[in-house]
Amino acid sequence: MKITRVETIPYSIPYLKPLRFATGEVTAAEHVLVRVYTDDGLVGTADAPPRPFTYGETQSSIRSVIADLLGPQLDGLSPLDRETAHARMARTVGNPAAKAAIDIALWDLIGQSLAVSVTELLGGYTDRMRAAHMVGFASPGEMVDDALRVREQYGITTFKVKVGRRPVQLDVTACRALREALGEDAELYIDGNRGWTAAESARALHQLQDVGLLLAEEPCPADDIAGRRWLVQHSTIPIYADESASRAAEVTREILGGSATGVSIKTARTGFTHSQRIHHLCEGLGVEVVIGNQIDSQIGSVCNAAFGAAYEATSRHAGELSNFLDMRDDLLTEPLIIEDGTVLVRQGAGLGIDIDEDKLRHYRHDG
Amino acid sequence: MKITRVETIPYSIPYLKPLRFATGEVTAAEHVLVRVYTDDGLVGTADAPPRPFTYGETQSSIRSVIADLLGPQLDGLSPLDRETAHARMARTVGNPAAKAAIDIALWDLIGQSLAVSVTELLGGYTDRMRAAHMVGFASPGEMVDDALRVREQYGITTFKVKVGRRPVQLDVTACRALREALGEDAELYIDGNRGWTAAESARALHQLQDVGLLLAEEPCPADDIAGRRWLVQHSTIPIYADESASRAAEVTREILGGSATGVSIKTARTGFTHSQRIHHLCEGLGVEVVIGNQIDSQIGSVCNAAFGAAYEATSRHAGELSNFLDMRDDLLTEPLIIEDGTVLVRQGAGLGIDIDEDKLRHYRHDG
Repeated sequence: MKITRVETIPYSIPYLKPLRFATGEVTAAEHVLVRVYTDDGLVGTADAPPRPFTYGETQSSIRSVIADLLGPQLDGLSPLDRETAHARMARTVGNPAAKAAIDIALWDLIGQSLAVSVTELLGGYTDRMRAAHMVGFASPGEMVDDALRVREQYGITTFKVKVGRRPVQLDVTACRALREALGEDAELYIDGNRGWTAAESARALHQLQDVGLLLAEEPCPADDIAGRRWLVQHSTIPIYADESASRAAEVTREILGGSATGVSIKTARTGFTHSQRIHHLCEGLGVEVVIGNQIDSQIGSVCNAAFGAAYEATSRHAGELSNFLDMRDDLLTEPLIIEDGTVLVRQGAGLGIDIDEDKLRHYRHDG
Repeated sequence: MKITRVETIPYSIPYLKPLRFATGEVTAAEHVLVRVYTDDGLVGTADAPPRPFTYGETQSSIRSVIADLLGPQLDGLSPLDRETAHARMARTVGNPAAKAAIDIALWDLIGQSLAVSVTELLGGYTDRMRAAHMVGFASPGEMVDDALRVREQYGITTFKVKVGRRPVQLDVTACRALREALGEDAELYIDGNRGWTAAESARALHQLQDVGLLLAEEPCPADDIAGRRWLVQHSTIPIYADESASRAAEVTREILGGSATGVSIKTARTGFTHSQRIHHLCEGLGVEVVIGNQIDSQIGSVCNAAFGAAYEATSRHAGELSNFLDMRDDLLTEPLIIEDGTVLVRQGAGLGIDIDEDKLRHYRHDG
């Protein structure tokens, strides 16, 4: 089986309401559907969600870099030749979502051609992931309503609260309201998206002691190196690197530099191949991981669940699998379901997904 | 496909001459052939070479631990459920060769059932490995003769010279004689098997400066922690951890503790699953690796080549693939061939090997 062509389809699906967090706000999912074609008729699928404020990619830069550079480098390779594919793609710096989507499509092809799910190919630890839900910026009352509704409707009991607002008291109050409303059994953690300074982070974490947080993600910028290290040294709540550790070498720098205690893994930026590397690196370093979400569609969430279920360490924590609930619609023929707070891994070959061509026709905007 | 049974067959094949190195001497390959049976008739195969002086396993301890503990834990699992298999086996401490053989047999089964080679399953970087040959203790003249013969006969141009004798001048003289006889193009490195002190290692490495060594493996004991760190700090020749870094956590300790510059990976002790983890860990840490040899049979050498070819970093250096040349015979129907200094990865499914049942009957000694 040889790769013949990579197709990129830009599409846009509105969110139910604008998503707001420390780095900005988005009103629609402006993603790129990536399809890798082969000479024996199989097609691998993946979704690339651009995050311009985080990784510098846009919908159209993803299309350009795949059309001009990454796609042609795959011509004639077997999807199994992943290491060669990555060695070639690595000549181009950056562009994590573009490369990750290609990687995921290759694994989808491998799984389809071998009639095995991606989870089994990767390690096959379990068949499910507990889901964590992200609670975005709003008034404490609205945030509590959102969490209660999601718990009621989907059985989710782990919540990631977006923080990083000023004054920190805004977020402290919201977290405290959430803990009060959800009770002691709910798991809560926070994500600052680098919105605070190190001192603000320390103050907030101190005030949040009694709230009982699992972890705090990117409370302040990793590039404030001395401040971040000071925070990590003094915090009894684990500090997780997310966007500051999106490549293995960055993981090593942040962890060995004392700037993080744990690492978030997102298949939307490291695909399966490099997510596996980061998992193995973290495991070998004795560092905990959590499966994150790049504001993924159902396709991306299927990928995160498929990866997370493959290993003990990635399935230990609830993974962020519910962001797609904010989208008005999605592209899968068989929707992703969260029930009892859990996502079941698809049993089908590869990713086990099919694209609804009518919906794709409706939402695509490439002419 | 479910695992139904694990069989262990002890066998003994004499060496052409006793193998001598700093930790001891062996006169015959006393290995255990491991076979994992499944309910659909496929059988996975691996070879476990006990190294009592290095890992504390013997031929019969490998059989016992598989029969009593590891084997029953696999009952009913699919070979794809590697992470579950390893989580169960991890309850038993140590026993690396026993666990590695089971892991390799699982990958052989996965490959067979999917009709894909292990190299392709792991990453598929290339289809061959350059071979390095180990030159054991003897007089300088005999060591030179051995190297020249192997170069002439197999085209091998990378040699690992066993050192660790006292006074160090013995080994320095041998290395210098080898360099002189083989010329500047040959690649030479040394393996001390912890035979020297740190001071002796430093003296030897200083005297060997002009010989041009690629690296020096375990020149002194890793447990001489301060001495080893001092050596690594002062040596311009990379110091590789081998037996001191046979698990991911040990790799992290040795590397972060400043006690090693590089790491040797051997499938005979970490199988494919944990060799992959160590590869990913080292890559993420920015640490070079070399594929080592646990005095492997042809079966084990096939495994090392299959793993090494899967990644760029493991196929960059010549791998130690020729120890089987010292065995009078072997168990494969289709012998492993070294030509032009290179081993080609088997194209068949899984490991791509078949056991010669007549030979096995001849060499086995379980009754």
